[in-house]
Amino acid sequence: MRDLDLSSSATFSLNATTAPVTGAGAAAPTAARDAVRALRSSQIREVANAGFGVADILPFWFGESDRVTPAFIREAAAGALARGETFYTHNLGIAPLREALARYVSELHGATPMENVAVTSAGVNALMLAAQLVVGAGDRVVAVTPLWPNLVEIPKILGATVETAALGYGERGWTLDLEKLLKALTPDTKLLMINSPNNPTGWVMTRDEQRAVLEHCRRHGIWIVADEVYERLYYGEPGERTASSFLDLASREERLICVNSFSKAWLMTGWRLGWIVAPRVLMDDLGKLVEYNTSCAPSFVQQAGIVALEQGEASTRALVANLRVSRDHLAAALAKLPGVDVKVPHGAMYLFFKLEGAQNSLDLCKALVREAGLGLAPGSAFGPQGEGFVRWCYACDPARLDAGVERLSRYLARR
Amino acid sequence: MRDLDLSSSATFSLNATTAPVTGAGAAAPTAARDAVRALRSSQIREVANAGFGVADILPFWFGESDRVTPAFIREAAAGALARGETFYTHNLGIAPLREALARYVSELHGATPMENVAVTSAGVNALMLAAQLVVGAGDRVVAVTPLWPNLVEIPKILGATVETAALGYGERGWTLDLEKLLKALTPDTKLLMINSPNNPTGWVMTRDEQRAVLEHCRRHGIWIVADEVYERLYYGEPGERTASSFLDLASREERLICVNSFSKAWLMTGWRLGWIVAPRVLMDDLGKLVEYNTSCAPSFVQQAGIVALEQGEASTRALVANLRVSRDHLAAALAKLPGVDVKVPHGAMYLFFKLEGAQNSLDLCKALVREAGLGLAPGSAFGPQGEGFVRWCYACDPARLDAGVERLSRYLARR
Repeated sequence: MRDLDLSSSATFSLNATTAPVTGAGAAAPTAARDAVRALRSSQIREVANAGFGVADILPFWFGESDRVTPAFIREAAAGALARGETFYTHNLGIAPLREALARYVSELHGATPMENVAVTSAGVNALMLAAQLVVGAGDRVVAVTPLWPNLVEIPKILGATVETAALGYGERGWTLDLEKLLKALTPDTKLLMINSPNNPTGWVMTRDEQRAVLEHCRRHGIWIVADEVYERLYYGEPGERTASSFLDLASREERLICVNSFSKAWLMTGWRLGWIVAPRVLMDDLGKLVEYNTSCAPSFVQQAGIVALEQGEASTRALVANLRVSRDHLAAALAKLPGVDVKVPHGAMYLFFKLEGAQNSLDLCKALVREAGLGLAPGSAFGPQGEGFVRWCYACDPARLDAGVERLSRYLARR
Repeated sequence: MRDLDLSSSATFSLNATTAPVTGAGAAAPTAARDAVRALRSSQIREVANAGFGVADILPFWFGESDRVTPAFIREAAAGALARGETFYTHNLGIAPLREALARYVSELHGATPMENVAVTSAGVNALMLAAQLVVGAGDRVVAVTPLWPNLVEIPKILGATVETAALGYGERGWTLDLEKLLKALTPDTKLLMINSPNNPTGWVMTRDEQRAVLEHCRRHGIWIVADEVYERLYYGEPGERTASSFLDLASREERLICVNSFSKAWLMTGWRLGWIVAPRVLMDDLGKLVEYNTSCAPSFVQQAGIVALEQGEASTRALVANLRVSRDHLAAALAKLPGVDVKVPHGAMYLFFKLEGAQNSLDLCKALVREAGLGLAPGSAFGPQGEGFVRWCYACDPARLDAGVERLSRYLARR
């Protein structure tokens, strides 16, 4: 059906159109709308681009382990493919996965029926769906920063305005100024976006802080979207399986949408599988939004999720034990370098440390990749509150961390 | 970290909160925002629910073949999993898939560089991303109906208003009233959403119609989002591989966002893999939106997409040949039934036929599933213009179609 005379872009380019251009709109540039153009692009990608052509780079800039997904999870997906599980599924996910998630969440955080659980196409997709559920144009959102940019930018796509409340940094590392946050949560606020354990700082919200925020939000009818994708990457007392969650405190039917993901605790970043725990009254509307966003997560990916939940506990525990070793190893090595101020946080998989000379952390990280072959994420990528810091993902073995520290050390010595 | 005293919903339910409820917002219901509650839910699901408990149902209601994805595509995904391809990919997709898509699209529709191609997490996800790129609150969108509800509902999630321009139905089946459509495309219109070959009607837009619409939209600076996921399911002259596409007429740098999917032509519904062809100037902004929606499609799913494109042509051609047989078989069988007015369209995989007594097609389809074990989609699911019709997906073998027709025949005879 291709018509060669017409398919050439020269013939039918805007300039060559045969009809006169008369409408007002035709003069407008061919571009995305202003709100989308104003969204932040990834500074990490900007740093990576600065390293284009550098042959030998040690990258610690992404929030991803260098380890492949455990074999038993990959085999579960391959098995589902072999069985022919290649069809659409229910918008909210296949029932066995929702049931497995309900059991898993109930065990960690108290009774959670499957009717309160929905499967999503990644944790970030869960954040987008949560935002679509509750915020529209003109709504006020508050986010606690420094923060993975996605939580701040997503509400803007929907026309909402986002105010930030900053964590403080001091002797005890990153901490919450509770009074400041509650003050920012004015009665006209629609939604609080909060991420604990936190990317990039590793900050973990305490149960008392969660209780105070929850009670304040209850009083004013403010929704909480809690991004808890790092809950299992928590370095607490022996036997503690998870960081404190809003789910430990809230009923399942109040204004809390809890977002989680298979990416971190099961090494499944490239699978794009996540979930939401939310009030039952939202589920029909959430199902519609899933339909209009991705319709469902891939069927064989969902099957692998069941196996990850049912057989993955030992693997997750071993991962967290390894991460703790890597964290301590990297922190000890960094602490020896001049101009480095590093604190050891209790969660996530990053050290977010202060570095002398990083007043422009983006420029510094570009120089590091070009001149030292070391890939770090600039603190400014996580909001202005992160300026002066850099983020190092330590989800790899200590030898690789040592090689990176060696590069940083040499770079700092040359300055 | 779980605190048993606090995790009980009874202790911390809204009613039992210790702090007094004083804010205005707290009195508001715990519910999704109005715009989301107003979104249409699936009438097909409503029909399916009506059949709950009916043991023997022949379902033709979903837009999905009953055949599993070809083995060589499933094996490609399993191979990628075995190789350990389980990490994040570039937001716009892995380069080899974008290159393979560029070659494929170029072959069908003229030169299309990979810089104009982006991978998405399903065709519907591509529609959502396209809408996010160009429309926000208050924008005017026009959609040609009857239509898969997703194209009409997606802009509403972003606060846009959607007007519909209806196809006409007559002796030649469903046809476009071009004058009516151009009149609906007022200069203040931001976006036209159009789907050809069309779900549910099978209507295929002619090249002349596409040219007229394109020229009109150029004059007024109106964006076109062309949903062409059924382009290969086209029953034209021998040797014609695809329905006419806006890509055949437009340059790659004008206001056209063309949406496609692996779901239909490669039997990959459950994989959630699609793509966008769009002006290069949009690609940075599209990359940001992908980051904030799903970040990327699963890596091993993208690998399977490459294999589908490079080795799938024979399989797609055989599929289309089979679908043509099924279409003709079903149309001939239906034409013999009393009260059925069926026309044979040139595209997609549905017969959208008029049925006496289907003035309330939702009620009729519920009765059909309950009383005859026959699963059809009500015409009203595709907008008021579809009322009086029902949709039958014929993507299965003729024997199964016969069994369905037999059930319909018996039901009609009993009435």
